[in-house]
Amino acid sequence: MAGSTFGNIFKITTWGESHGEGIGVVIDGCPAGLEIDADYIQSFLDRRKPGQSNFTTSRNEADSVSIMSGVFEGKTLGTPISLMIKNTSQISKDYSNIADVYRPGHADYGFDVKYGFRDYRGGGRSSGRETAGRVAAGAVAMKLLKSFGIDIYAYVSRIGEIAIDKNAFDRNEISKNPLCMPDRAAYEKAADYMKELIEAKDSSGALVECVISGVPAGIGEPVFDKLDARLSYAIMSIGAVKGVEIGDGFEVVRSRGSDNNDSFCIKDGKVSKETNHSGGILGGISDGSDIILRAAFKPTPSIYQKQKTVNSKGEEVEIEIKGRHDPIVAPRAVVVVEAMAALTIADMMLVNRASKV
Amino acid sequence: MAGSTFGNIFKITTWGESHGEGIGVVIDGCPAGLEIDADYIQSFLDRRKPGQSNFTTSRNEADSVSIMSGVFEGKTLGTPISLMIKNTSQISKDYSNIADVYRPGHADYGFDVKYGFRDYRGGGRSSGRETAGRVAAGAVAMKLLKSFGIDIYAYVSRIGEIAIDKNAFDRNEISKNPLCMPDRAAYEKAADYMKELIEAKDSSGALVECVISGVPAGIGEPVFDKLDARLSYAIMSIGAVKGVEIGDGFEVVRSRGSDNNDSFCIKDGKVSKETNHSGGILGGISDGSDIILRAAFKPTPSIYQKQKTVNSKGEEVEIEIKGRHDPIVAPRAVVVVEAMAALTIADMMLVNRASKV
Amino acid sequence: MAGSTFGNIFKITTWGESHGEGIGVVIDGCPAGLEIDADYIQSFLDRRKPGQSNFTTSRNEADSVSIMSGVFEGKTLGTPISLMIKNTSQISKDYSNIADVYRPGHADYGFDVKYGFRDYRGGGRSSGRETAGRVAAGAVAMKLLKSFGIDIYAYVSRIGEIAIDKNAFDRNEISKNPLCMPDRAAYEKAADYMKELIEAKDSSGALVECVISGVPAGIGEPVFDKLDARLSYAIMSIGAVKGVEIGDGFEVVRSRGSDNNDSFCIKDGKVSKETNHSGGILGGISDGSDIILRAAFKPTPSIYQKQKTVNSKGEEVEIEIKGRHDPIVAPRAVVVVEAMAALTIADMMLVNRASKV
Amino acid sequence: MAGSTFGNIFKITTWGESHGEGIGVVIDGCPAGLEIDADYIQSFLDRRKPGQSNFTTSRNEADSVSIMSGVFEGKTLGTPISLMIKNTSQISKDYSNIADVYRPGHADYGFDVKYGFRDYRGGGRSSGRETAGRVAAGAVAMKLLKSFGIDIYAYVSRIGEIAIDKNAFDRNEISKNPLCMPDRAAYEKAADYMKELIEAKDSSGALVECVISGVPAGIGEPVFDKLDARLSYAIMSIGAVKGVEIGDGFEVVRSRGSDNNDSFCIKDGKVSKETNHSGGILGGISDGSDIILRAAFKPTPSIYQKQKTVNSKGEEVEIEIKGRHDPIVAPRAVVVVEAMAALTIADMMLVNRASKV
Repeated sequence: MAGSTFGNIFKITTWGESHGEGIGVVIDGCPAGLEIDADYIQSFLDRRKPGQSNFTTSRNEADSVSIMSGVFEGKTLGTPISLMIKNTSQISKDYSNIADVYRPGHADYGFDVKYGFRDYRGGGRSSGRETAGRVAAGAVAMKLLKSFGIDIYAYVSRIGEIAIDKNAFDRNEISKNPLCMPDRAAYEKAADYMKELIEAKDSSGALVECVISGVPAGIGEPVFDKLDARLSYAIMSIGAVKGVEIGDGFEVVRSRGSDNNDSFCIKDGKVSKETNHSGGILGGISDGSDIILRAAFKPTPSIYQKQKTVNSKGEEVEIEIKGRHDPIVAPRAVVVVEAMAALTIADMMLVNRASKV
Repeated sequence: MAGSTFGNIFKITTWGESHGEGIGVVIDGCPAGLEIDADYIQSFLDRRKPGQSNFTTSRNEADSVSIMSGVFEGKTLGTPISLMIKNTSQISKDYSNIADVYRPGHADYGFDVKYGFRDYRGGGRSSGRETAGRVAAGAVAMKLLKSFGIDIYAYVSRIGEIAIDKNAFDRNEISKNPLCMPDRAAYEKAADYMKELIEAKDSSGALVECVISGVPAGIGEPVFDKLDARLSYAIMSIGAVKGVEIGDGFEVVRSRGSDNNDSFCIKDGKVSKETNHSGGILGGISDGSDIILRAAFKPTPSIYQKQKTVNSKGEEVEIEIKGRHDPIVAPRAVVVVEAMAALTIADMMLVNRASKV
Repeated sequence: MAGSTFGNIFKITTWGESHGEGIGVVIDGCPAGLEIDADYIQSFLDRRKPGQSNFTTSRNEADSVSIMSGVFEGKTLGTPISLMIKNTSQISKDYSNIADVYRPGHADYGFDVKYGFRDYRGGGRSSGRETAGRVAAGAVAMKLLKSFGIDIYAYVSRIGEIAIDKNAFDRNEISKNPLCMPDRAAYEKAADYMKELIEAKDSSGALVECVISGVPAGIGEPVFDKLDARLSYAIMSIGAVKGVEIGDGFEVVRSRGSDNNDSFCIKDGKVSKETNHSGGILGGISDGSDIILRAAFKPTPSIYQKQKTVNSKGEEVEIEIKGRHDPIVAPRAVVVVEAMAALTIADMMLVNRASKV
Repeated sequence: MAGSTFGNIFKITTWGESHGEGIGVVIDGCPAGLEIDADYIQSFLDRRKPGQSNFTTSRNEADSVSIMSGVFEGKTLGTPISLMIKNTSQISKDYSNIADVYRPGHADYGFDVKYGFRDYRGGGRSSGRETAGRVAAGAVAMKLLKSFGIDIYAYVSRIGEIAIDKNAFDRNEISKNPLCMPDRAAYEKAADYMKELIEAKDSSGALVECVISGVPAGIGEPVFDKLDARLSYAIMSIGAVKGVEIGDGFEVVRSRGSDNNDSFCIKDGKVSKETNHSGGILGGISDGSDIILRAAFKPTPSIYQKQKTVNSKGEEVEIEIKGRHDPIVAPRAVVVVEAMAALTIADMMLVNRASKV
């Protein structure tokens, strides 16, 4: 089954290994009549491009997208939109030190057991590069959502012990610093911390927060396809994510019903809520408030320190990972989180069209 | 689409409203030849039965399961297994105070916007009662997994500020106390806290931890159907869950690669890991270690305090919820978490049969 | 996977063995707000009830349907509609002569190889009785389609060498004769032929034709989910069907483009077609004309003649089938064809809601 | 939803318009370890290449396939296999005469109603060119089936009134004549008929027969995913097909149970059948005999005669189709039928791996 397809109606299928001919995505089920062009999609891909700061790898990935099908005279046809990014730098470098060795924190061992062998070059299918397809598809979903009045943005809200100050929140700041933090002061502290880690040949985890506003009440299906269940599925499918939460998330463990319940009220003649502990979703269905989710990203497993591991012959060995790797995953993953959120919401909005006679 | 189906191969579809004729589940895709009987399934359902302590509602729900199809001469036929639980106590009590009013923390408002109306009796489709179908199906999945050598158990690891002490962990204790905590001392403190909340007409959130051992390496599909993505999807689809995490979960935000990476090693001639920060899943594929997941359950939204809300006419009103409601969701949800984990693992084990030629 | 689910949005899952506790269907994805009651559904089930003439078995199957969920105050809730028919006559008769023997023309052998064993009582899951679930669900789909202005009816158009005369077509006649033929004279000839076969302990094949009118142009998805592909899938999934055709069907093999092409024209200000060789579907998408399909039903395989076969021990044996069996499948299958057509069209109508922005 | 995906486990998604950048297919779920190279796939594509005789268009479509992902060191990785064929001859010819006009026998009108507009160049998504993706994927499925001992071949068995003589059947002849008929004498008569039609600016329908041998008993799922239901779905999804039948197909209408039933017997110590009226499938499950299916292809709708039709403004107009079009669809579709059969069988073989514990 291989699991490379996501969505019910707005359905995407990604393909591609890190160092194969290219990577791409096919979007099946995007409604007809949406204005799309390659430059628009490229602008999303550029946000996950490496080499933009000291905190991301200096690998040069052009990641130039081509629209191969599904768009005609500037508009979506309703037929599959095939987006392709050719791999340009497939220089066959020497992988002999990792071809038979299981890198700690990576899926190498699992792939070998599962399939009998794997493409060991740059992580193959389990490379972060696979997310380029998601981002390209997410750009299309975002355009559709924009036409519905929905806005989605994400940012890094914590790195190690450095968390943003909610009172200093500045959305414009997100794109101004390479760690994508919406608080300049927090960014500066985090940048210092990152420099320290880089020197120590180490890496850091981080928290990414995502806000989805403008989703009308009533989106999400009861039981298994709850809106939060679909969002968790989508977000947890991003490589380095180890946790997902909605609204107050894990804080609810400590809370009481009288605090956690959001009172409904009427604002400007509309049903609204006094608070938003629910994070915009109640019983799996959107309640009209902002949807808030958070994803925990683990530290980049590819670090330059010598590590103990085993090889495919079952021998204990040491590994020293080479190449260029980000010391933190989250900043480049911000746009991936937005993309997965957009893909999920777009799909569930279309699914909802069949709710009533 | 309505989203009442879960799974790719081992696929379940639940049905039923809280106060309708009954609730049930159809399992399609359970392999033939598995020994199953109603008593076995009933033993799982009995674990989520209310009225077993002061901390669960004293409602009397017999929840007696019937196997309607798919089992012959004590074994699964390979055809759909239909399990039904008739609703016995549908006494038409007076719902006039909630029929038109949106209970805070519940999906009432979302259902009304989505479908135009709803079954307001006892929560209808969004009632916790729906999980009985999941538990019944989960019992069958668990039996299949047992035949593969897989063991799954969950427990309450934190209620409010009272967390279990890992050093005092005692699996046998879980079934001995009504809060399903594996640490007697923690249970006693939590019981006091719960009594205090009950007096205050309030409710508590809690953390449920689940351990899945015996899953071989190689289970889970790369990209979207990662094992952790499927588990998150499954667990987040349980009514009151607001967060899911795997292994170190949200702790990874604070951690460094050099700490978070688990070194592979050889133990008893087999590939193993020195630590298990990954929680048994790397790159979405099982790594052979125990799979550890945690779910954050919000406090029961149905509390006996007077609450502010709105009604379907758009008026601000006060509501006083009656009936009998658990002051904490998690203890009865422990078996639901186990069930959803079992359903997910069973499905992905069968999916994996097609991985190699 | 087991394949007991059909549909994308309007999705049904059937369950049940012929001689188990009961049979049923769960409809997930029926839009909310449709008026439905058990009597309405029962009226469809009554059309496939046996014992209504000499040409159907005199078995007494009450087939009384219960709505277990998904309907409240007379209207669909948007949640799963569970429909159940209890098996009443599970008298444990003696199956020893068929338990280990593969009946010619039946799936017994395939089931044994596939699953290792089977429920041999009355065909188990492969019994025609399974179609009761389809008919019950089809009744709901039909109600939805009626609200869209769509009408579906089927009839027997040929039995052996006796075909209806198109010029004598009388829709009212269909329900008046037990062979469901829309031409009284053809029915009388066919009735004589059937009597002859019954005496000869034999059975007959037949052709069922189905007309679907009122489907707007634009329904059906390009490529794999073409409307005719989905209809063929649906109709061929009915037990005894060995062929499906749309419009001119197999006649197109003999035809020329200049004859087969239907000219578009304008009638009453609307796009229409001069002829309907296409049977209402072009390139997999409805063209606004009546959709015409035909299904070839094989003769009932259960005949009373002695037949050669083998048993599960691999011995050649003779079998004499007992019990009561229809000498012709098609008349009772007419409502099944209508149901499968309705389920397909309802689903594709809802799928189409996402075609445009 | 758009329906461009087919299969449960061995799942393909095609993309591409006739005159866009290219066409392609993504195969997700092909097991790892299968030897595949581009030349092998190309050999299947070459069989549907036009310009190979007087009976196919002289358009020059190189249709050169590239493997973009999923194959490493000559073997499938278990990850998505992306196959791409760039469109080389997208010379922007003048489509003004068809851009706004609905060609009789084509999906133009349906697309316009469905999506609001369409890519009118060469049929866009509804072009026969879309089948190149199916053929490329089918080649991979065929390789997998070969490893299971399964053989699939198809041929044209009737054109207009000229049918092959079963006694003159010669499999080697199929690839020797441009009409893909397995009987030289029939081919010669058919060739004369085709010349006559070409002169008359007309086209012909045809019958394609497909034989699948080596499928073990037990493949196919009861109820909706019967093997014949899946095959019908697959075959009817090919553009010009208007009918599908299995085994005796529509002949069963005229037959009696005593004739139609195949007696089981023991041959070479194995369960076998005396006859094969069933076409290898009973109750939707393979019975171990050859699977025989037939597809009715309509005459090419693009003929050079002047035809009456309407345009998008709702005016009645005349159309004269230009460009190069095959006067018969079937010969080039033979490999498409084989491909769709292979894709279906491969998928159902993998699905069956989960049948037993």
